[in-house]
Amino acid sequence: MAHKIAILGLGKIARDQHLPSIEKNPDFELAAIVSRNADLDGVEHFTALNDMLAARPDIGTIALCTPPQVRFELAVAALKAGRHVLLEKPPGATVAEVEALKALAREQGVTLFATWHSRYAQGVEPARTFLADKTVKSAEIIWREDVRRWHPGQDWIWQPGGMGVFDPGINALSILTHILPAPVHVVGASLEVPRNRQTPIGAKIAFKSATGHPVSADFDWRQEGPQTWDITVKTDAGTVTLSSGGAVLAIDGATQLSADDTEYDGIYAHFAALLAAGESDVDISPLQLVADAYMLGEIRHVDDFIE
Amino acid sequence: MAHKIAILGLGKIARDQHLPSIEKNPDFELAAIVSRNADLDGVEHFTALNDMLAARPDIGTIALCTPPQVRFELAVAALKAGRHVLLEKPPGATVAEVEALKALAREQGVTLFATWHSRYAQGVEPARTFLADKTVKSAEIIWREDVRRWHPGQDWIWQPGGMGVFDPGINALSILTHILPAPVHVVGASLEVPRNRQTPIGAKIAFKSATGHPVSADFDWRQEGPQTWDITVKTDAGTVTLSSGGAVLAIDGATQLSADDTEYDGIYAHFAALLAAGESDVDISPLQLVADAYMLGEIRHVDDFIE
Repeated sequence: MAHKIAILGLGKIARDQHLPSIEKNPDFELAAIVSRNADLDGVEHFTALNDMLAARPDIGTIALCTPPQVRFELAVAALKAGRHVLLEKPPGATVAEVEALKALAREQGVTLFATWHSRYAQGVEPARTFLADKTVKSAEIIWREDVRRWHPGQDWIWQPGGMGVFDPGINALSILTHILPAPVHVVGASLEVPRNRQTPIGAKIAFKSATGHPVSADFDWRQEGPQTWDITVKTDAGTVTLSSGGAVLAIDGATQLSADDTEYDGIYAHFAALLAAGESDVDISPLQLVADAYMLGEIRHVDDFIE
Repeated sequence: MAHKIAILGLGKIARDQHLPSIEKNPDFELAAIVSRNADLDGVEHFTALNDMLAARPDIGTIALCTPPQVRFELAVAALKAGRHVLLEKPPGATVAEVEALKALAREQGVTLFATWHSRYAQGVEPARTFLADKTVKSAEIIWREDVRRWHPGQDWIWQPGGMGVFDPGINALSILTHILPAPVHVVGASLEVPRNRQTPIGAKIAFKSATGHPVSADFDWRQEGPQTWDITVKTDAGTVTLSSGGAVLAIDGATQLSADDTEYDGIYAHFAALLAAGESDVDISPLQLVADAYMLGEIRHVDDFIE
């Protein structure tokens, strides 16, 4: 039987990604939308989560797609009501609150799934498999995109907790932490913050792995024209390149795989597997690296950003 | 037999606190100093850790008292050489690096002790015991001191990773996380950063506990005259006040205990117990709250700080 699911927060990511992937997946049945302003033809609509929780005890799973700043209270209410919860990335505005959610889900005996959609890009698992038994020498992330194109009118990304350029950058970090055989930590960071904003528009981060090799990341939200979402990992047995956000995989320059975007289909397939197994999947490491970069980073003020 | 111990980094904290507490504790014998510039009459001196590790295999324990920005590589070298390591607070410049050290100590089968000296103030354990079975309604930290008095000439506190006012503030957080029955997470923060510096001189943080009660913290480095290091916790069965950094405990205004500072004696007693039991003690939660406050915090620029 399909899991009845409600979407909480019907913004761009819910419409572009969650709705089509739920529609395609026979394990899920969209049963309600919770959103203050937006609704969807033919689907029951609630303006507040608590109303939905009270009216529809049959809806056992909730996909939480609101901005991270307001995710915690909603997730607590859903978990306390005994519902399974899928969290859009990042899973919260702080690391400690996600740890609290993890503990609450365990207490309640329900599934909590902190999603990192980029990990489901089709080159990622083959890259992880290739790297598992190699000696990594260095890794480099270049993640440059146009904020005006991808986040039009999304003021929350510039508010404290909105993450700025770490909002896309954390996607790269979610791939990096998944494919590298050893964990990494931040050793230096430079954050470029527009004088009229609170979050960075650009960031350069230096990491080191537990095995000692360097990793660098260059995040930039000011790239017009072609967009760049590349990760390169040099090893003793060849160079792995993930491009187009992980959809294209090359080893020593030879393309191994170039696939369509099916990230959210992968998310919902994994969510169904977690629900079937009664397990949770909450990896905090990408968010931890961002928090550490903030704590350790040097802030450089740059020109105002005017959308 | 006493543990032979080396002090790495012979700055103010090592001279004022570690040396006297080691001297007093029969479980330890000061066997070497490692410091680029400073030395101590009658104690063998090395300018580099690796020289000491090679020359003195009999020194099994190391107290790491350098600034946090350079602590990681030194701790890795000591742990890889099979030595037990005590870390001054904060245990590192990032959370992820401390997690890497924790994993390395486990691999090496040695003791790692991330110290939080304020937890050994004499009112702290009685406060924790009192609170264990109470319902907490709110908590408030006021931690205001004069940076010129406590950190003269310490430029590293103003560098990225130097923590600024979180350097004393994290002491309060280490008490808070130890005495409260439920974990807390940051829900908002305002960081006051002098225009000519990289780290905050003042911070106001709002937390929430997993059980829903509020906690506030007011950290300030601009307080001349009397200094304030107070934590007040309101419960359903009275109000607990820790003042003088935890040395004085009152319940409903009645002083229960007012003790001399024996924090570092407590640290070395606990270190000896950990070594005897073959255990580690690495609690990252105070550093996690600081990293989260940076990530979530609003930065407000304030007047230049000139020492």
